Amino acid sequence: MSDDKQLINELADVVGAQNVITDPTALSVYECDGATLFKALPDMVVFPENAQQISAIVKLANKHQTPFIARGGGTGLSGGMLPVRGGMLIALNRLDRILEIDLKNQRAVVEPGVVNLLLTHAVQDDGYYYAPDPSSQKACTIGGNIAENSGGPHTLKYGVTTDHILALEVVLPNGEIVEFGGAVEETPGYDLRGVMIGSEGTFGIVTKATVRLLRSPQTYQTTLSIFETMDDASNAVSSIIAAGIIPAALEMMDQLVIKALEDGFHYGFPLDAEAILIVELDGIEAGMQDQAQRIISILNEHNAREVRYAKDDADRENLWKARKSAFGAFGRLAPSYITQDGVVPRTQLPKVLRQVAAISRKYDIPIANVFHAGDGNIHPIVLFDERDPDQCERVEMVNEEILTACAEVGGTITGEHGIGVEKMDYMPLIFSPEDLKVMASVRDIFNPTGLCNPGKIFPTPESYIKLGLAS
Amino acid sequence: MSDDKQLINELADVVGAQNVITDPTALSVYECDGATLFKALPDMVVFPENAQQISAIVKLANKHQTPFIARGGGTGLSGGMLPVRGGMLIALNRLDRILEIDLKNQRAVVEPGVVNLLLTHAVQDDGYYYAPDPSSQKACTIGGNIAENSGGPHTLKYGVTTDHILALEVVLPNGEIVEFGGAVEETPGYDLRGVMIGSEGTFGIVTKATVRLLRSPQTYQTTLSIFETMDDASNAVSSIIAAGIIPAALEMMDQLVIKALEDGFHYGFPLDAEAILIVELDGIEAGMQDQAQRIISILNEHNAREVRYAKDDADRENLWKARKSAFGAFGRLAPSYITQDGVVPRTQLPKVLRQVAAISRKYDIPIANVFHAGDGNIHPIVLFDERDPDQCERVEMVNEEILTACAEVGGTITGEHGIGVEKMDYMPLIFSPEDLKVMASVRDIFNPTGLCNPGKIFPTPESYIKLGLAS
Repeated sequence: MSDDKQLINELADVVGAQNVITDPTALSVYECDGATLFKALPDMVVFPENAQQISAIVKLANKHQTPFIARGGGTGLSGGMLPVRGGMLIALNRLDRILEIDLKNQRAVVEPGVVNLLLTHAVQDDGYYYAPDPSSQKACTIGGNIAENSGGPHTLKYGVTTDHILALEVVLPNGEIVEFGGAVEETPGYDLRGVMIGSEGTFGIVTKATVRLLRSPQTYQTTLSIFETMDDASNAVSSIIAAGIIPAALEMMDQLVIKALEDGFHYGFPLDAEAILIVELDGIEAGMQDQAQRIISILNEHNAREVRYAKDDADRENLWKARKSAFGAFGRLAPSYITQDGVVPRTQLPKVLRQVAAISRKYDIPIANVFHAGDGNIHPIVLFDERDPDQCERVEMVNEEILTACAEVGGTITGEHGIGVEKMDYMPLIFSPEDLKVMASVRDIFNPTGLCNPGKIFPTPESYIKLGLAS
Repeated sequence: MSDDKQLINELADVVGAQNVITDPTALSVYECDGATLFKALPDMVVFPENAQQISAIVKLANKHQTPFIARGGGTGLSGGMLPVRGGMLIALNRLDRILEIDLKNQRAVVEPGVVNLLLTHAVQDDGYYYAPDPSSQKACTIGGNIAENSGGPHTLKYGVTTDHILALEVVLPNGEIVEFGGAVEETPGYDLRGVMIGSEGTFGIVTKATVRLLRSPQTYQTTLSIFETMDDASNAVSSIIAAGIIPAALEMMDQLVIKALEDGFHYGFPLDAEAILIVELDGIEAGMQDQAQRIISILNEHNAREVRYAKDDADRENLWKARKSAFGAFGRLAPSYITQDGVVPRTQLPKVLRQVAAISRKYDIPIANVFHAGDGNIHPIVLFDERDPDQCERVEMVNEEILTACAEVGGTITGEHGIGVEKMDYMPLIFSPEDLKVMASVRDIFNPTGLCNPGKIFPTPESYIKLGLAS
């Protein structure tokens, strides 16, 4: 009996044979996540149902020296769950229970496989919600959000996943079950909860999370405004922030997105406009209309050609539909696209967007921009045909130049999608070899054998050569 | 020449002889912080002026196997900077420069010795401020705030120090200089910035911090209300939060504090009232008055006997004066006091406060309560005479029972003061031996020799015996 065979038998003893997949056709479903350019086939997928089983599985993986990687909804955008060195995927879909809801203290305890939006569904009738709202929130899981420290359009006001996680139960890479954080906001001792969040599955497997629930806003005030120039729209964003207003969302879309939306859905947006800006306020009703008026004045001061204002919930849904259908519309522009993810200081937005446009022209690769303007998180949508090797090569240059541009103005190479396999090569743009060495030594403490999600985050010697940084 | 002598000579070569203190009388100034019950004399204090000098000093400490500990304003409340195993204090007072202010991107770069409030002073005329506001903000330093992850009365809305720090330059315990985080909010890779913040000086010495600046609120709405019972006041707090309002501050004081304030300052508070509650809103002017009216209604619904409402800035100062002078008033009640620091889920506040009162009666030790009600962070002020050994013994029992009560309802043993030496023994109340082992192994990575601030945070075998947890 080969070692793999034996491992599979031992796994079946833990979870039942029906919960271990080894058939190549069945496995092919698990060869990629949302970053579809990258693919890697696991040797097996196993479906545990609780922390004890996961602990047992991890111990078996160690015994057989097999790489293991947790997988949530498979919606990641950086290839973070890819089994690049083969081995075992531990699918967390069966750990999908909401274990406890404590509305008075505004928290819930959930398993990692709970789909993000379903948590909000469970509490919304009582007037609560879970704030982090990645675009994939109908499919992504809380566990995946924790691995990538996911954000969403409402990050500006409400922060990212780490701001909403109080405590974690974790199966460490050696199979031990530990807890980080606590049921209240404050955590004494080292913030291992914090360092676990965003560690992209390299520090262990989250098996339980205590999350914050927020009171649903009593009301929203949403505007969609159309600008002749990107600079006007960017300046409006700066003025809103400088006025001390913190909108729940400040989302911008550029001309190419407008074109795609018009082609696909006919919202009646003018094709010569350079930018659309959605500004949303939320909170308690008292005084909200005054604040909205203030925002409308600012938009007009910055030459908004048109300001659409949501009078009611239906109107609001409608204004957001444009933003939410943007990704669906890109299919009309090109067979494939990559959503880039960079962050720049807010004042550098106009400059970097001009650079992105220049990069697009230089490589003859169309780039649309949908982005969280409030926190400087840009999402250049790089449009191409993945069947054309020459285009693929140019796309790689485009990615590198965009991320370099972000790094050069004091920004960074990912806001919310993670490094995964997609951006490993670009880590030297923002971290010195010493910084990376410290990170790697922390990883080695959690993950001394390197079997837990290997081949991620850290650049290889080739990365330095590629970036011209090799000494 | 003894080894110490040689070390002192080598230190003098780095910073100049005038910046090394070894005279016992001069050293005695550095034997404690704000937690005055704990004392430990350093063998020397050295005053570097930049990161390069600190790096050189740390390398010398390693060479001579001498413990070293950074010291900021010396206002800590858990003895975090005490040289409990002797050695060298590295005083950061000369690193007190604000290196860069970038208002457009709302951030500043500061050295660790910058006094918290002086940063706000530097930017307030332009309409900005630095949010974390510990009660000691006139004296404590940003570096110390980072070490302890300090909070303040406005934590409820604005979070603690970690929410306001973008990047850190750190001299690691081996003398290497590294950077964690980045100039924008998002940090790819492991959040070492986050794990550094609150590590109480055991992971290295922060030599530079990039901090967030917030827009100063356009306006405040502040009320001070007086309640017959603590339960009414607690219920008012819950109702305000449940209404979806997030005040900037929700501060409560109990009857003993009222008595101390009246004895000392004659604010005209009724001595039979059980609680005073300060509620402050801040933000942009539009709609703020409506929100304040909403809060006043809630206060009245919960039987507030009297609601004082600040009509202007002078009124507001006046209402806050009561809260801010509370600590000064305790001197009238007892020669010594310890400010305890526990956190409980908000719904458990009334129960835990009743337990604190029972503990006070049981040991015949008066306890006053000033606390951040919004986030369940209680500060029982344990009043006693430190010259009386019997009282000191009872105070120790009081501390243990209060922290045990917090832990038992799912809370924790420190909200903002840190573990330091004061609460090391109580760590097993909230962390399992496995949890602590993981923490210790992370510490060992940053601090493999253990020379950087030794003897802190982690419980000793005796702690387990003391708590009856020894196996």
